[in-house]
Amino acid sequence: MEISARNVFEGKIENVELGAVMANVKIKIESPQLVTAIITKESVEKLNLKPGNTVSAVIKSTEVMVAK
Amino acid sequence: MEISARNVFEGKIENVELGAVMANVKIKIESPQLVTAIITKESVEKLNLKPGNTVSAVIKSTEVMVAK
Amino acid sequence: MEISARNVFEGKIENVELGAVMANVKIKIESPQLVTAIITKESVEKLNLKPGNTVSAVIKSTEVMVAK
Amino acid sequence: MEISARNVFEGKIENVELGAVMANVKIKIESPQLVTAIITKESVEKLNLKPGNTVSAVIKSTEVMVAK
Amino acid sequence: MEISARNVFEGKIENVELGAVMANVKIKIESPQLVTAIITKESVEKLNLKPGNTVSAVIKSTEVMVAK
Amino acid sequence: MEISARNVFEGKIENVELGAVMANVKIKIESPQLVTAIITKESVEKLNLKPGNTVSAVIKSTEVMVAK
Repeated sequence: MEISARNVFEGKIENVELGAVMANVKIKIESPQLVTAIITKESVEKLNLKPGNTVSAVIKSTEVMVAK
Repeated sequence: MEISARNVFEGKIENVELGAVMANVKIKIESPQLVTAIITKESVEKLNLKPGNTVSAVIKSTEVMVAK
Repeated sequence: MEISARNVFEGKIENVELGAVMANVKIKIESPQLVTAIITKESVEKLNLKPGNTVSAVIKSTEVMVAK
Repeated sequence: MEISARNVFEGKIENVELGAVMANVKIKIESPQLVTAIITKESVEKLNLKPGNTVSAVIKSTEVMVAK
Repeated sequence: MEISARNVFEGKIENVELGAVMANVKIKIESPQLVTAIITKESVEKLNLKPGNTVSAVIKSTEVMVAK
Repeated sequence: MEISARNVFEGKIENVELGAVMANVKIKIESPQLVTAIITKESVEKLNLKPGNTVSAVIKSTEVMVAK
């Protein structure tokens, strides 16, 4: 089975912390990765994003799924 | 300024593809990273997630922001 | 009031589990439904998605809202 | 491979519409389904959600992934 | 119909820009608003968030729905 | 550092409620704001969205980050 999500990072679980309903899972990513970000053209222009720029990919942790 | 998002990956932009409204930005992440996933306790139990397991962190690309 | 969300499924609540801040609500959907997925053109090509294919729509439960 | 997403609906693709960067995929879901929604305890109380209530699960289409 | 989303801001549409599949809608919000953010306890501690702090609520525009 | 998220609202924290893993943060937004919503062209047509319409921007609270 392949999934449409463009960002799949293999790694090892470092920690699992359980709450009543939710859990916080820390995964150590093993190797360099290519991240795909779908953002507005407006943001590309406002931040003047170009190949070669040093940037950060920012992801809220509630958006991260785990596959095993 | 610090942001509450637990997943911030520094890297270099490899490619920017512009659509009419949206854009697809590819970022090459430079180094090993710790990813935080907030998932249900139910998923932790169904997948039997434990420290040391090899897993994948899966993220839909529309959830990835870019900071510069 | 109509909402821009393209995926609205009517059903009956089967269970509500309360945590300290979050809750897990299980809803039994009553009938066949048409799901709309907005994904990258890149994913459509990589997965070779075509009308008639059997696929799965995958949704993280933190993305599901409840309207009553 | 199993994924932590609690909502996986099997169905047939009815239509694929390509944009410059994004695509809109319509999937006909075949059978009754149980949907999991993670919402705030505050919303459960404000909407007075209880087992047996008729409600709608509402999902923005940019949150739906496709697995094949 | 009431929805579980805790952030509903009434305003006037200023602009609608159509792409092939997606659209960018600008809404002018009329009045002071209370925003609810569900974040990790870890972030609250790392950013030392306390009542009275001046902060920003940050929301990716693909997460914003429109109701009319 | 600038972020691609098009919706950044400055305000004061009114309340922080901690759960085991998650927290609920209420932020009082100080001034009128322009909100950007990225939705399908299909929704723009179905809701007949035009400049000048009174609408609501609806955002699930798990999508809101906090920056300080």
